[in-house]
Amino acid sequence: MKIIQGGITAPKGYLASGIHCGIKYKNKDLALIYSKVPAIACGLFTQNKLQAAPLKITKAHLKNNKAQAVVINSGNANCCTGIGGIKDAQAMSLAAAKGLGLRLSEVLVASTGIIGKRLPLLKIKNKIGLLVNRLSLRAGLAAAQAIMTTDTRPKQISVELLIGKTKVKIGGIAKGAGMIHPQMATMLGFITSDAAISKANLKKALKEAADNSFNLITVEGDTSTNDMVLILANGLAGNKSMSAQELRLFQKALNFVCLALAKMIIQDAEGATKFVEVCVEQAGNIAQAKRIAFKVANSPLVKTAIYGENPNWGRIAASVGMADKGVEQRLLSIHLGKIRVLAKGTALKTNQQGLKKVFKDNQIQIKIALGLGKYAAKVFTCDLSNEYVRINAEY
Amino acid sequence: MKIIQGGITAPKGYLASGIHCGIKYKNKDLALIYSKVPAIACGLFTQNKLQAAPLKITKAHLKNNKAQAVVINSGNANCCTGIGGIKDAQAMSLAAAKGLGLRLSEVLVASTGIIGKRLPLLKIKNKIGLLVNRLSLRAGLAAAQAIMTTDTRPKQISVELLIGKTKVKIGGIAKGAGMIHPQMATMLGFITSDAAISKANLKKALKEAADNSFNLITVEGDTSTNDMVLILANGLAGNKSMSAQELRLFQKALNFVCLALAKMIIQDAEGATKFVEVCVEQAGNIAQAKRIAFKVANSPLVKTAIYGENPNWGRIAASVGMADKGVEQRLLSIHLGKIRVLAKGTALKTNQQGLKKVFKDNQIQIKIALGLGKYAAKVFTCDLSNEYVRINAEY
Repeated sequence: MKIIQGGITAPKGYLASGIHCGIKYKNKDLALIYSKVPAIACGLFTQNKLQAAPLKITKAHLKNNKAQAVVINSGNANCCTGIGGIKDAQAMSLAAAKGLGLRLSEVLVASTGIIGKRLPLLKIKNKIGLLVNRLSLRAGLAAAQAIMTTDTRPKQISVELLIGKTKVKIGGIAKGAGMIHPQMATMLGFITSDAAISKANLKKALKEAADNSFNLITVEGDTSTNDMVLILANGLAGNKSMSAQELRLFQKALNFVCLALAKMIIQDAEGATKFVEVCVEQAGNIAQAKRIAFKVANSPLVKTAIYGENPNWGRIAASVGMADKGVEQRLLSIHLGKIRVLAKGTALKTNQQGLKKVFKDNQIQIKIALGLGKYAAKVFTCDLSNEYVRINAEY
Repeated sequence: MKIIQGGITAPKGYLASGIHCGIKYKNKDLALIYSKVPAIACGLFTQNKLQAAPLKITKAHLKNNKAQAVVINSGNANCCTGIGGIKDAQAMSLAAAKGLGLRLSEVLVASTGIIGKRLPLLKIKNKIGLLVNRLSLRAGLAAAQAIMTTDTRPKQISVELLIGKTKVKIGGIAKGAGMIHPQMATMLGFITSDAAISKANLKKALKEAADNSFNLITVEGDTSTNDMVLILANGLAGNKSMSAQELRLFQKALNFVCLALAKMIIQDAEGATKFVEVCVEQAGNIAQAKRIAFKVANSPLVKTAIYGENPNWGRIAASVGMADKGVEQRLLSIHLGKIRVLAKGTALKTNQQGLKKVFKDNQIQIKIALGLGKYAAKVFTCDLSNEYVRINAEY
């Protein structure tokens, strides 16, 4: 597997575009992804009990696991908008379908932005023609830009792998800068591939890739009403049916694409100045490891300490202690970077200068060993800065 | 019941003191509360699985539900300090017992401050004589000051009620400014009363009062390793055994004292500029109502919006939707102040100026009606400001 240029238009048969239609005051706000032939498609959706209108339409359109295009707007989430909002999402999908000469059910739809306002449908409809005309091999980046909200930079990646002797490609774009938490939280991700792969295998692969990437990142523990990851695989690479071993290669490449996008999201998180890995080891089970890792990763006290480059590991220990009833103080150890600060529940004398150096870095690893079992989990987060407060106070 | 002056020394037979012993660079850091006669005593302790050394000693000393004094330091939590830390907590308790001519088990001990550093025991021991000498009726405020960490002001209250024809008093002090969450989280509270009351009734009353006050406040969802609420009732008021009705009067007064202290904690929360009530109504059960109220109250996105005086209720709706699987979008309504913004899951057209006015106030009420049942819960929190980040980045 190797990283290649091109993003979502790197795989064979895909075009994309991204334009400004006026939902936002300025900047691109409408994106289109198009496959020249029908593709196998599936998606993962927010676990939030409030689900925005476009999710309902996209889920309905995915019932046959086929799609040929995705239309996406930023600046308005089309959420809490009632029956009218559902009609708007359908109308947006229909406008794109007409522009592309497709059936309604072949076009998936996604939105991101503010909750509780009706979509300015006319602005979208008026620009669908332009959006279709702009479809090109070079506009993957424009599409990545058009799905941004508080993101400061577009997020895209593409890779190539060999399935037998056939080159297969996977590309992806994503957005998300705050309200990021597992279970498909305030993020949109769109993956394209030219692989020939069955529905069942594509679903399984997307689920596994998301569990190992998008579902391991958190900014502040809030999951959103809108977010989804969609994958299209159009088969134009022409590979033969994949063996179990080839499926593993595909899985590995897809995991890589999703993890790369997930890390870009954290690196571009609202106000973030540090990229933080929280590793929980020696847990009694995976759920315990994840629960504790997320509790630490979401603690405002831990995150502000990291922002302040203040190796106040007592807050990490306190966070572990409240995350799970199974934690045993006498078995707990904590490392900051390579420096052990807590062993068997007791503070160690540590080199304060060395610790400060660990926290000066813009990549920080926190390792928590529970002494309870053999399971581990790693999650990714960022610090909590003044800039985060400024962005979210104003947005 | 009426509010009276005097704080923890208002009830008969109590003295207090608060001095600087040198744990902190400056400011008072050592407090003592003393009852002239043995008192019935009980406590509530953090649910964090990491518990600081003083909690272990105080729990042991409370086995017989009697105590005559409480010694407290701020500036050092004596947590994650191993066997040595437990010995230190015991030695601190013993030093106070010797100074007061009491037995070790009659003195309770509490600490608050940084985790993972041994207590500077000698500094405490050297000043125990002074601490005892300073005991007075007027030094309740000094004790309230000596237990402060990032608090900006001392917190105290006292009330008087009639049990039969006897005047009974309750006083309290508390500290806590961050890391505040239910289950006795990063706060210390010390309540004194001259009521004559049985062990069993005192325990029950404290539990109920805490559940309706300290366990309803949250700053950022972090619970601490150190915190406790202790109550002493020395019987010097001379009231007769309380009837069920009199117990309810006592309960009401104790609830008032605890809620007043809890609200003071939120009003003085780190960086807080707004006091926020989150009311969840029409829940299927109390646990659901509390879970949702706390999720909203702890959402950094909700809290930063409140700080920014930005009535972005979509974040509240999203927070409700991820808090509980039982939430039904089509039944959900939300009020900000008196203005309904969401009805049956659909946004209403609202007076934006009116909404902005609600958020300009420094007391904000968020009301969430689930449409699922008849249960309700109310929790108290504050906004998330730049000042919170600054304090916690540096502390």
